[in-house]
Amino acid sequence: MSQRHLVTVTPQLAPNTQMLYDQLVKGDRASLARAITLVESTLKTSKSESRKLISLIQRNCQPRIKDSFRIGLSGPPGAGKSTFIEVFGHHLTNSGLKVAVLAVDPSSTRTGGSLLGDKTRMTELSRNPMAYIRGSPNRGYLGGVARSTNEAILLCEAAGYDVVLVETVGVGQSEYLVADMVDALCLILPPAGGDELQGIKRGIVEQCDAVVINKCDGDLIPAANRVAAEYTSALKFMTPKSKHWRTKILKISSKTNEGIDTTWHTLQEFKETMIENNAFQERRSAQQKAWMWQYIQHRLVESFRQNTDLRQKHVAYEALVSEGSLNPGVAADLLLADFWGKDRVL
Amino acid sequence: MSQRHLVTVTPQLAPNTQMLYDQLVKGDRASLARAITLVESTLKTSKSESRKLISLIQRNCQPRIKDSFRIGLSGPPGAGKSTFIEVFGHHLTNSGLKVAVLAVDPSSTRTGGSLLGDKTRMTELSRNPMAYIRGSPNRGYLGGVARSTNEAILLCEAAGYDVVLVETVGVGQSEYLVADMVDALCLILPPAGGDELQGIKRGIVEQCDAVVINKCDGDLIPAANRVAAEYTSALKFMTPKSKHWRTKILKISSKTNEGIDTTWHTLQEFKETMIENNAFQERRSAQQKAWMWQYIQHRLVESFRQNTDLRQKHVAYEALVSEGSLNPGVAADLLLADFWGKDRVL
Repeated sequence: MSQRHLVTVTPQLAPNTQMLYDQLVKGDRASLARAITLVESTLKTSKSESRKLISLIQRNCQPRIKDSFRIGLSGPPGAGKSTFIEVFGHHLTNSGLKVAVLAVDPSSTRTGGSLLGDKTRMTELSRNPMAYIRGSPNRGYLGGVARSTNEAILLCEAAGYDVVLVETVGVGQSEYLVADMVDALCLILPPAGGDELQGIKRGIVEQCDAVVINKCDGDLIPAANRVAAEYTSALKFMTPKSKHWRTKILKISSKTNEGIDTTWHTLQEFKETMIENNAFQERRSAQQKAWMWQYIQHRLVESFRQNTDLRQKHVAYEALVSEGSLNPGVAADLLLADFWGKDRVL
Repeated sequence: MSQRHLVTVTPQLAPNTQMLYDQLVKGDRASLARAITLVESTLKTSKSESRKLISLIQRNCQPRIKDSFRIGLSGPPGAGKSTFIEVFGHHLTNSGLKVAVLAVDPSSTRTGGSLLGDKTRMTELSRNPMAYIRGSPNRGYLGGVARSTNEAILLCEAAGYDVVLVETVGVGQSEYLVADMVDALCLILPPAGGDELQGIKRGIVEQCDAVVINKCDGDLIPAANRVAAEYTSALKFMTPKSKHWRTKILKISSKTNEGIDTTWHTLQEFKETMIENNAFQERRSAQQKAWMWQYIQHRLVESFRQNTDLRQKHVAYEALVSEGSLNPGVAADLLLADFWGKDRVL
């Protein structure tokens, strides 16, 4: 590939990062934890080391990366996501697979604490030597959380984890971010339909490869059947995400284990179908490319927003635009003129 | 307002632009057409004049701007949007309202010609002295089309048009752009349900304030009723766009005029409800603020993409990221380091 010479990253790691890498690829859990902390760090020196570590992994661990299965789990609070992960995670480790669980919860940056992926929620799975559970990073803004989660996925794969589950709360924008990080997206729903489900964004249903209706046990069975029927008919006239796959609707119970194996079989069938049609790698490629531009865009806007000379002006102009006395286009032009130097823009 | 002194735009117009402004606010159609051409122009001198014109309008024409009603019309090809606009437009002018029709069709930039808003499609309305019809701008990229359409809306309002209809093709991203430009969004649908409607993005249904099922006449009535029922049940469990309004479903016929008056009444009721709840101006304010940041983001990314020294590198890195041999975060860092100068980033 003639373009390769253009890449100037020389992955000469600091001795302790080299050690971290060596231990990581052996599957050492403590090293994986330290590596994730490294990619989450906002320190300048950590960033430079983390970039080298990631580059080395991207170069050397292709077989593991290519074989892994990234599954996103989304759903509203109360859908029973953590109980599902407990049961589903054990099902996978019992089949001989190593499972990593990551969480994306940008809201946790507001409250200062990370709830998702908390080991106290998944007590059984966190003691399972074949599983690794990690809470949501506290990086303060959505762009930062997205990047460190994308990199944490790679680290888990380099450490030999076969399946990476990425859990998200069913609120805000995190679901859309996760949809672009994973090979398959599952929406976990409680058995409640119609008006009770108003909180779920239709947009995310369109992004799903499987809808999993949880708590399908005891006297909730009729309600679960009703939700399944509603979604079956709703999906009928939604744009399919991939032309090779029709979103499946599954009914499960994390209590009775009903449907857990079917869920895994369906996801495997999805993966095989996508691979057969060259759509698996295609989706990942498109995601990677989109992330590159996403990061660039995010950093450009951040560098603009954080220009200390202009910050007061941003706020003032925003207020004027908001009240209707300044045109948004004119405001943008004036702020950019100040940012770039007058001669370049106006 | 203490922030006002910060705005340094001095709207001293060139003599011919001043004349354009004077004629425009008198409602002269030829001047409106010339003013729209000015805001669509990419010439540096035109841009500077257009900025002054827009600033002057934003300052002097507040009553007209505040009173206008911006209505977006979206829907798949074949829904009968132009026939609807013919009939609906006449209904409005017959009520003594001046109606402007703008079109957003970014795809027309590819084919080189603008189809939407074409006067040959709306022969009757284009001859109506109370109506003004304008085709989609050919500005080459979505961001440019968005900005000139937003400014064309202002120009129409300054020229005394009471209702501005913004038509969009039901494909691509144009619908989402238009959703953020208007006070009310109508989805126009043909009487075809289930599998035939797969092309419609669920996301746009969520953005709608009214769903208008067209062609509800003759032997299409049963099909139209079926679509209406499907959408009624689908809407039941969608997130409402505004807490003050539940999306209405309307059945109309552009052939028999059935439901045209009801559509207008419903839209007026929507406007009144939103105004009563302070949500009308609130939505516009939020839109204006979002557009300011949208323009800034767009221009920042454009200036990055168009850096001629780096363009070859963008393409090469994108390819490496796509094939999985370069990490998207590392690629973004390297490209930004080159763009900003090494010391600032790495």
